[in-house]
Amino acid sequence: MPDTTAPLRLGIAGLGTVGTGIVRMVQNHPEMIAARAGRPIEITAVTARDKDKDRGVDLSGYTWAQDAVSLAQRDDVDVFVELIGGHEGTAKDAFEAALAAGKDVVTANKALLAIHGNELATSAEAQGRVVRFEAAVAGGIPVIKSLTEGLAGNQITRVMGVMNGTCNYILTRMESAGLPYDEVFAEADALGFLEADPNLDVGGIDAGHKLALLSSIAFGTQVDFDGVELEGIGAITIDDIKQAADMGYRIKLLGVAQMTGRGLEQRMSPCLVPALSPLGQLEGGTNMVVLEGDEVGQIVLRGAGAGSGPTASAVMGDVIDIARGLRIPTFGQPATTLRKVRSAQAAVAAPYYMRMQLIDKPGALAKVASILGDAGISIDQMRQYGHEDTSAPVLIVTHKTTRSAIDTATAGFADTGVVTGDPVCIRIETV
Amino acid sequence: MPDTTAPLRLGIAGLGTVGTGIVRMVQNHPEMIAARAGRPIEITAVTARDKDKDRGVDLSGYTWAQDAVSLAQRDDVDVFVELIGGHEGTAKDAFEAALAAGKDVVTANKALLAIHGNELATSAEAQGRVVRFEAAVAGGIPVIKSLTEGLAGNQITRVMGVMNGTCNYILTRMESAGLPYDEVFAEADALGFLEADPNLDVGGIDAGHKLALLSSIAFGTQVDFDGVELEGIGAITIDDIKQAADMGYRIKLLGVAQMTGRGLEQRMSPCLVPALSPLGQLEGGTNMVVLEGDEVGQIVLRGAGAGSGPTASAVMGDVIDIARGLRIPTFGQPATTLRKVRSAQAAVAAPYYMRMQLIDKPGALAKVASILGDAGISIDQMRQYGHEDTSAPVLIVTHKTTRSAIDTATAGFADTGVVTGDPVCIRIETV
Repeated sequence: MPDTTAPLRLGIAGLGTVGTGIVRMVQNHPEMIAARAGRPIEITAVTARDKDKDRGVDLSGYTWAQDAVSLAQRDDVDVFVELIGGHEGTAKDAFEAALAAGKDVVTANKALLAIHGNELATSAEAQGRVVRFEAAVAGGIPVIKSLTEGLAGNQITRVMGVMNGTCNYILTRMESAGLPYDEVFAEADALGFLEADPNLDVGGIDAGHKLALLSSIAFGTQVDFDGVELEGIGAITIDDIKQAADMGYRIKLLGVAQMTGRGLEQRMSPCLVPALSPLGQLEGGTNMVVLEGDEVGQIVLRGAGAGSGPTASAVMGDVIDIARGLRIPTFGQPATTLRKVRSAQAAVAAPYYMRMQLIDKPGALAKVASILGDAGISIDQMRQYGHEDTSAPVLIVTHKTTRSAIDTATAGFADTGVVTGDPVCIRIETV
Repeated sequence: MPDTTAPLRLGIAGLGTVGTGIVRMVQNHPEMIAARAGRPIEITAVTARDKDKDRGVDLSGYTWAQDAVSLAQRDDVDVFVELIGGHEGTAKDAFEAALAAGKDVVTANKALLAIHGNELATSAEAQGRVVRFEAAVAGGIPVIKSLTEGLAGNQITRVMGVMNGTCNYILTRMESAGLPYDEVFAEADALGFLEADPNLDVGGIDAGHKLALLSSIAFGTQVDFDGVELEGIGAITIDDIKQAADMGYRIKLLGVAQMTGRGLEQRMSPCLVPALSPLGQLEGGTNMVVLEGDEVGQIVLRGAGAGSGPTASAVMGDVIDIARGLRIPTFGQPATTLRKVRSAQAAVAAPYYMRMQLIDKPGALAKVASILGDAGISIDQMRQYGHEDTSAPVLIVTHKTTRSAIDTATAGFADTGVVTGDPVCIRIETV
């Protein structure tokens, strides 16, 4: 029942696995898509860096645009599909050009929206344009739609998620193969799983971008990526993974966002989660997002977080929404009404897992215990393991405490002369 | 960006837990809902069987309509919210009256749509009206939205789900408490978990209604509840649950719909699923739906399948969609284009679990084995248990076979004189 039956015309900038996935979908099932969209969906123009590369799909029916900006401005394009990536340069220029030229935009670009989302959404809405970005978060899982639309009647209380498949691959592979981080990192690199700047993945930045977008929708706040407390997985050792498993946990790069009395808490960091929980059982590149609302309770969504098909599926869902006439603000309410809130780092207490190397001399363990006590941290479990050299691995599980207490304690350890190297401290999430 | 900012006015027929949940949501967060919906959402009129009952919410600001039909026709109602239930009588009359009076309809009524969905959708679309029913399937889980919109670019290959919380409660309670079916059934009845006609729950009918609605969207076919192969949980014993657990399975009332070469297969029946799989781990009233598409792969959605908050959340999501201007056909494509397809019962082979009582005399087991062989069924495992009376429990796990082969074999057992009572046959789903 959309008010128009004219074909909706797409211009696609970026022809990697996602772009070619969209071409494949549009070419494979045109009648099915038209029946659902209420009108045909066509690709009119495309562009990418290399015109001559064989991408395994037939592009001969489409105009090859000189560049993304000119593609975004074409008269025969209704929706600009931005699959260039990056939060600056061509992607941003073309995005803005598309809005200025009166086009709707569908994007998979989490970095661009996490960093410039407020201004782009404001600009789009001022010009009456729609921006959709289901593919930017958790691949094929319809999580943006579920949060923005399905749960729109709820006050959202918390959003959690494992949203970087590469990190989850590395952590599960370290466990299953018993390999150290560096080796699995090299494997992931060889398999092409890592971004050009691997720190985007293993530093938690990519997943942090996604969390910042979910937070904005969930809490009606301006996108605040700078407010995300970020911690990557680079310090996790195979020993941590084994110790966690012994205690019934697995280590996941977990994002959590919740509104607290002190502001919006957003963190993306390694966490111990119960091994038998849905989050704990996630393998490889699979993503999981948990949405909690005052009325709906807890909703858990699981699916492939990346890849050609799943990501193209998310883009096509957005395109079909536009074809059907769905026109809602980028982050679910007008960008001008999104609140600017302070960020509250680690406001919510939790138990922590700590591992450190202790110099083997009398009173060493007592010093550590006393520093923890001084920081107000009480100990649930402490184990010192057998060892063959001059320092011993010590494992501590605390009762509920705050990140700042943990930081105070670890700063204190440095002065004792009995703790060597940096202690590893990982939050335990029991949900 | 909807084209109107006038308040959207609801008329609610039915004020049980769901209806009062909607009243609570509208009253608790009016600004949040208006910001997201792009306009205020108001309740103007309500009705239910008993005007004087205390429902714990303040209804004084709303007109009390004489009956549901007159409510549906009121000039001050834009959206008729149908929470009466039942596939005939008042619910259907009021639904039709609302469409005729130019109202959009939001409903939680799976029975009405499963049985009259084709005609109601056709009628609604002919009159330019929207019908939404997220609350009819899997409570608060946005599964209708995910399937109709988020995955709209996919050819759906299979839909599965545990969608009746009462059955799942009974089966998990039998297992955890070691209680027989009849006792747990009586418990569930005392707790108010059962429909007025309990066969709607334990006979699989309610869950079958939901599966028929999902099938229509997934495969672009007319709603065909009569085509759902239904089997309830009444024959499941505590012994079956224990045997299944011994083999690493749990028994769930599982719905499966898939398009096969021979037609649309829809079945709702008890199945053995791996105990450690997401479906196997579902406890109590929780629902889970699995959606599989050619591009997106497998998406799993989990959440509360019933209850005031979750169901009201789903209704409010639909209401906000309408406020935002989303107008799509009831089943995702125009009702007049939905295909009528033949139903293919149990077209897909699977292993089966069988349990029977065998009279304790020489050659009895050989007779059973020979009948299975004659039906083309090969045996993976067979166990005969110790016993104290004149018949012995025998457990058989087959290799992959069809339901019709199983039916042939069980019919054959009756003539042997060695099998007493009806054998229990439960499909094993390994996914």
